[in-house]
Amino acid sequence: MTRKELVDQIFFKKTYLAVGLDTDRTKIPEHLRSHPDALFEFNKQIIDATKEHCVAYKINTAFYEAEGVKGWETLEKTVDYIPATHFKIADAKRGDIGNTSDQYAKAFFQKLNFDSITVAPYMGEDSVKAFLQYEEKWAIILGLTSNAGASDFQLKKIIKETTGESEFLYERVLKTASGWGSIENLMFVIGATQASEFINIRRIIPDHFLLVPGVGAQGGSLEEISKKALNRECGLLVNASRAIIYASSGFDYAEKAKEAAEKYHLEMTLCLSSLEVN
Amino acid sequence: MTRKELVDQIFFKKTYLAVGLDTDRTKIPEHLRSHPDALFEFNKQIIDATKEHCVAYKINTAFYEAEGVKGWETLEKTVDYIPATHFKIADAKRGDIGNTSDQYAKAFFQKLNFDSITVAPYMGEDSVKAFLQYEEKWAIILGLTSNAGASDFQLKKIIKETTGESEFLYERVLKTASGWGSIENLMFVIGATQASEFINIRRIIPDHFLLVPGVGAQGGSLEEISKKALNRECGLLVNASRAIIYASSGFDYAEKAKEAAEKYHLEMTLCLSSLEVN
Repeated sequence: MTRKELVDQIFFKKTYLAVGLDTDRTKIPEHLRSHPDALFEFNKQIIDATKEHCVAYKINTAFYEAEGVKGWETLEKTVDYIPATHFKIADAKRGDIGNTSDQYAKAFFQKLNFDSITVAPYMGEDSVKAFLQYEEKWAIILGLTSNAGASDFQLKKIIKETTGESEFLYERVLKTASGWGSIENLMFVIGATQASEFINIRRIIPDHFLLVPGVGAQGGSLEEISKKALNRECGLLVNASRAIIYASSGFDYAEKAKEAAEKYHLEMTLCLSSLEVN
Repeated sequence: MTRKELVDQIFFKKTYLAVGLDTDRTKIPEHLRSHPDALFEFNKQIIDATKEHCVAYKINTAFYEAEGVKGWETLEKTVDYIPATHFKIADAKRGDIGNTSDQYAKAFFQKLNFDSITVAPYMGEDSVKAFLQYEEKWAIILGLTSNAGASDFQLKKIIKETTGESEFLYERVLKTASGWGSIENLMFVIGATQASEFINIRRIIPDHFLLVPGVGAQGGSLEEISKKALNRECGLLVNASRAIIYASSGFDYAEKAKEAAEKYHLEMTLCLSSLEVN
């Protein structure tokens, strides 16, 4: 999917919600668990119920890998089931030396029809480049993540060679990695729990899309992030997983997921409208 | 596998070779490609041919994911085929927030019977901890990798809060991450192409096992690395992938792989014997 197509979808539907399909056998409604294809059935119902309220689905590959071969089948079927209008994110945190990243790119962009994949930056440029060789496909590089462990390295101070001043490692990642591609094929993951850094982040990368997990179960504020980080072309995909897909553990799980997604949608419509006024 | 079991295998066989199964459909011998289960057949022959010369197999998951569902099946079959005497490494470069890393651990330690998994450190402690909750299983954390991109971030200078002095990011990773587990469940990836750093690395982590890729196709020197980094319990697993498994592209591929593995084995026996003299 191109940037223009994504932006058009966002302004047409007035939402920048990504629904995270962290589908866990132990958390889906009990009545579904004996279904011969329980995880796919769950995803199908969730997609049908939420698709008018979101522009993207983020599939957390770990939950499918934990199911073995059957899980990989579910992953394939789920990607294929997502409508062509929606941006498909493999939340896979991959990245390796060049010839290996080539294989990951093949796995997620050719074998599976994802539009994008999340990538860890630790191994540097040649570990990311492979994902930027595909037209209309995206690498979404980890910048500043939503978890406690973000402070272990991402928030450590790096010395700038040029001036001797210092900056956070994550800032260096944004600056360096944004040079590896363009705003047409690179996004960054910035956790919603890191609200205090969003103004600074927009100074460094004003135009890139940010994939923002961490609202909902992890506690980040949609309103605050939107105020600080929306740009003229929206520039945000805000993800909620557990808060939507596990809104109910009963027979009404799809209905409750729809309601939860709609709530985000309405809040996003409001945020986008304030953008138009400015 | 416990550390003691691994060390016993190393000194019993006098080798610390890991054979990397980066099995690529386009690189296996042509006569095999029409085989209904070509990648597994290749792996089976390679394992049979090399097992007396190595103590570990490193399976690069990317190459299997690139084959889709069938690839995941091959992955399962390959892990199951590796003898119990050999240390099984999932070279998967995973790592995510806690509840997601839990799922990766389940995928590689429960569903698949790996002894260990390579993990990217960028997301910090909670992204790694999940892998340390399993008895006799290991996390192998990326320290200093073999590729050119290692210089983008791993070799940048971080400021030490305590003294104001600086150290490389990878050094900080070794120091911080070694506190998350013990020498019984943590190893580090150090690329063989980074020979100049090995003395320093052994100062920081004298006792940990290092998984060292990058000899063979990537050009690192086995002799130099061994001199600098062997410790009393060996402390090294040196991996070669392409140099062994693609030693020949003909009908004699298994035989040539055996010869290539044997060459490493002999060199390692020599290195270990010099260790016993000291």
